[in-house]
Amino acid sequence: MLKPNVFNAQCSTRVVLDRVGDKWAVLILILLHDEPQRFNQLRRRIDGISQKMLSQTLKSLERDGLIRRTAFATVPVTVEYAITPLGRTLHAAVDALRIWAEAHLGEVQKAQARYDSGDAVSEAA
Amino acid sequence: MLKPNVFNAQCSTRVVLDRVGDKWAVLILILLHDEPQRFNQLRRRIDGISQKMLSQTLKSLERDGLIRRTAFATVPVTVEYAITPLGRTLHAAVDALRIWAEAHLGEVQKAQARYDSGDAVSEAA
Repeated sequence: MLKPNVFNAQCSTRVVLDRVGDKWAVLILILLHDEPQRFNQLRRRIDGISQKMLSQTLKSLERDGLIRRTAFATVPVTVEYAITPLGRTLHAAVDALRIWAEAHLGEVQKAQARYDSGDAVSEAA
Repeated sequence: MLKPNVFNAQCSTRVVLDRVGDKWAVLILILLHDEPQRFNQLRRRIDGISQKMLSQTLKSLERDGLIRRTAFATVPVTVEYAITPLGRTLHAAVDALRIWAEAHLGEVQKAQARYDSGDAVSEAA
């Protein structure tokens, strides 16, 4: 077997990379790292996510083995999502993205304003 | 000003998070972290990226201040892309995603096979 290599289009790591960097997946994993949550709890805490998108992202994360869905036989049925040990190994990496985004927002916005005003293109001799 | 918070839909960090987790952005930043590259060098090394997608991702990264585009007045014009100091601050986080994807591919694929065979849904009493 070839060594996994994200730079190779035929390597499945490419698909995994696409999945784990997804904004919604990042936010869900960060919340579940703290404690298991029910669907509606996640929906309330992730401001702006649609029911459909939350449902799809939870299914993908479950399929990838990063979270586990447990249905309790209550009336009505209670469904809870929890991070798996595999999901925990990813938490530090996705949380680093969150921390970076929160820490460097100002610099990114300044760069965008500079770019949009046409100052960004450097020409060298 | 409110503290940046990716869980708030109105916070621009949400947009930044979406951008920095993008698969193509991750691969470009990892390559440019080593050394500046020309467009065609990047295209060759990122197997499977289309010219259009590479061009769009480079523009986004430049607009966000993560990479810098320099045009040299050669004939024909040479254009080189380099990581910026701001981009370097993001490198460790995106490289951690790559490392995770390469290291845990096998476990993700096993989980997917289990899910697709219908074993994954846990029911608790």
